[in-house]
Amino acid sequence: MTVTQDMLRTYPKDLGGVNQEILARCIDACIECAQACTACADACLSEDMVAELTKCIRTNLDCADLCDAAGRVLSRHTGYDVNITRAAVEACRAACKACADECERHADMHEHCRVCAEACRRCEQACDELLRAI
Amino acid sequence: MTVTQDMLRTYPKDLGGVNQEILARCIDACIECAQACTACADACLSEDMVAELTKCIRTNLDCADLCDAAGRVLSRHTGYDVNITRAAVEACRAACKACADECERHADMHEHCRVCAEACRRCEQACDELLRAI
Amino acid sequence: MTVTQDMLRTYPKDLGGVNQEILARCIDACIECAQACTACADACLSEDMVAELTKCIRTNLDCADLCDAAGRVLSRHTGYDVNITRAAVEACRAACKACADECERHADMHEHCRVCAEACRRCEQACDELLRAI
Amino acid sequence: MTVTQDMLRTYPKDLGGVNQEILARCIDACIECAQACTACADACLSEDMVAELTKCIRTNLDCADLCDAAGRVLSRHTGYDVNITRAAVEACRAACKACADECERHADMHEHCRVCAEACRRCEQACDELLRAI
Repeated sequence: MTVTQDMLRTYPKDLGGVNQEILARCIDACIECAQACTACADACLSEDMVAELTKCIRTNLDCADLCDAAGRVLSRHTGYDVNITRAAVEACRAACKACADECERHADMHEHCRVCAEACRRCEQACDELLRAI
Repeated sequence: MTVTQDMLRTYPKDLGGVNQEILARCIDACIECAQACTACADACLSEDMVAELTKCIRTNLDCADLCDAAGRVLSRHTGYDVNITRAAVEACRAACKACADECERHADMHEHCRVCAEACRRCEQACDELLRAI
Repeated sequence: MTVTQDMLRTYPKDLGGVNQEILARCIDACIECAQACTACADACLSEDMVAELTKCIRTNLDCADLCDAAGRVLSRHTGYDVNITRAAVEACRAACKACADECERHADMHEHCRVCAEACRRCEQACDELLRAI
Repeated sequence: MTVTQDMLRTYPKDLGGVNQEILARCIDACIECAQACTACADACLSEDMVAELTKCIRTNLDCADLCDAAGRVLSRHTGYDVNITRAAVEACRAACKACADECERHADMHEHCRVCAEACRRCEQACDELLRAI
């Protein structure tokens, strides 16, 4: 059991009907993707061909910020407002899709882009799954 | 001229046609609102009637996170992706609207909620204005 | 192999002599602790006795922010500056220690505080270990 | 009166003896500096000579994250812990000093680095002033 799952399990009130497994998977995917994107932006910055990776770096930075925000919103359950949650997860999904698309273009040449693209794709899918469940 | 405006003015490439005044206003509104929400969550926490303000605190925390993320996304122009920007600003607007609505309910009793509600409403409107412009 | 370890492994330049295992452990501890603290603040907010948990909530929020910042700084290696890294990890460690101490006071009564205190203590130790290694 | 000052003024309990003017100045400097650093990282990314600015970009990103975290910690007063505040402000000051030093090296060539260096230096001084006052 991950700490995320443990924190969901020990929440003192009703979680409001959302599937805990889907929710935990999405929180963990957001957190993992945020870290991968922060690290990928930095790895791109250290590539000799950094001038060709500027769009990738920028998309990485946006994706890290929106994954972090979504992961935080999803970790709160008190006074739940589906409009905020939905909008936060949609923004996260949009960034993950764009970042996965961009990183995949460099995945053959830069292994960090391949690892990051996979994390973005997993997070995009976890957001999709959660949006269908709420 | 604010630092935000100065940073837009000194960006070395084309800003892509978006009105600089509208963009600067939205960035500054996001930043101001994030700080007000962080402070309002904490002020609510120090009220004797904190038990009646838990939804307000939670909405404040979400709003701070989504304003911060939107303010960061809007401060970047390299490799611009309208889908990410639009989704980030929509999430920010949803949180600002919800937080303004919630804080307004306590504005008569708690002055920090009145100040925060005004910051949220300004940011909601700045997001609206920007979404119409992009 | 975690994504964090995979991103360290695929960084294109020299990581500057720091032990990768210790670094990965600290990054992952920061991320895990930030999520636990965000969730614990929210769980405390939903307790009937929230009025007695306000210091715990505040410390949780500080700890989440400082863990997030440290996790991001540690995920970057380009243009490494030991002074920034050291100060970021020291701030994270101070918050983790304070939050573990505070959550432990409620651990018998609130299981989320017990889970969170353990995550904070692990992160405090991971920060300690990293500070000795850099 | 700024929103930051207004939120300090309306905090419902005692602020604990810290000078409100110094505190408000430091919060506003953190927020302003975080935005300038996010924007400067992006402006550097759009420079043709981006390959020579990678250390500047990285320092900008660290500084933005640590200023954001410090600005949040300083916006909270409930359950005040001087150890956390001190460590957060020291980390912010270290990053501001490093980022001001780095940006100043490019200030003649890149106007965004000049604007950003000034924001970093103001924030470094505001942190210094606050650290002497707490």
